[in-house]
Amino acid sequence: MLPKALTNVIDALGSLPGVGPRTAERYAYYLFKSNSKIAEGIAEALEHLHTGVKSCPVTFALMDADEDLSPLYTDSERDKQVVMVVEEPLDIYAMEATHAFKGTYHVLGGAISPIDGVTPEQLHIGELIKRANNDNVKEVIIATNPSVEGESTALYLEKILHEQNPELKLTRLARGLPLGVDLSYADQITLSAALENRTQL
Amino acid sequence: MLPKALTNVIDALGSLPGVGPRTAERYAYYLFKSNSKIAEGIAEALEHLHTGVKSCPVTFALMDADEDLSPLYTDSERDKQVVMVVEEPLDIYAMEATHAFKGTYHVLGGAISPIDGVTPEQLHIGELIKRANNDNVKEVIIATNPSVEGESTALYLEKILHEQNPELKLTRLARGLPLGVDLSYADQITLSAALENRTQL
Repeated sequence: MLPKALTNVIDALGSLPGVGPRTAERYAYYLFKSNSKIAEGIAEALEHLHTGVKSCPVTFALMDADEDLSPLYTDSERDKQVVMVVEEPLDIYAMEATHAFKGTYHVLGGAISPIDGVTPEQLHIGELIKRANNDNVKEVIIATNPSVEGESTALYLEKILHEQNPELKLTRLARGLPLGVDLSYADQITLSAALENRTQL
Repeated sequence: MLPKALTNVIDALGSLPGVGPRTAERYAYYLFKSNSKIAEGIAEALEHLHTGVKSCPVTFALMDADEDLSPLYTDSERDKQVVMVVEEPLDIYAMEATHAFKGTYHVLGGAISPIDGVTPEQLHIGELIKRANNDNVKEVIIATNPSVEGESTALYLEKILHEQNPELKLTRLARGLPLGVDLSYADQITLSAALENRTQL
């Protein structure tokens, strides 16, 4: 009933995460009503997405396809002996936004999850061990997500990195109350962690 | 800091209605992680959006660009003497989904709104009057939105259509309680309308 060209756009946009038929319809109709340059701009950007982005072969961070290594790794201002391990490439940009970290990153590419069939072999853990030796790494900051999978991955990494080099300093991001959250709304695990890791005044 | 090709996609998707930087980032990263066919499919659909869809010159419904008139108008099963007037083309598909209406449609292209600078002259009202004469229309069902603008537009249409042809039957969609809404949650205007338009058992 709807024009085919519009149905095609609705179906295509419906493949985005969390976008149902109604939202896709809203997007498609908005684009149809707007200047065609907007739809064409999205189309062009999408066509270059996979050709324009690749993973850094050392850190597995995302980078422009014409670069050899991630600028976050090659930057001489950054300390290659301190490596923060994250699950996904976008975690890097969340951390970079704080301007608080001057080391380098290593992207695992996910977290260990037997239910989803993700084993340690599928993550970039071998490359992390190799890198720890090559770059003479002094500290690995484990920054996996505070989820069941993230926790398991952190424990696994701790064990395997310690086996490889008992001298290597291993740390994790602190647990505690996030800013602006009422004590009464904090979950029990967060609150326990905040109590356990309390800081002296 | 993010690869340029990814930033371009985030910026482009951020132009969709209700999509902020975080959502755009999520969409872009999902597309990057998925098979490139998905992003390419969206790109291709968007490129054909404006060339593949046009407005019917009589009803202003959307239709495939290679058609002369909307199939909802040319269909001989549909009664051209009953015309439902809606604000936007997508309203048609909401009504069609009910399979309850066998007349034809007329899209105004919006609602009268002095604040947004929308005057009656900018809507397809002249074409509606012309059509009422040409097709010997017996009934016009005013199905504008139950908003301030929709109400003003309905009143304006009632006045002008009545002036043109006092014989023409003018109706409006019924007001009342929507299905599944608790009486205690209904707003006062809806509840008043439901009382006023109560039906005999």
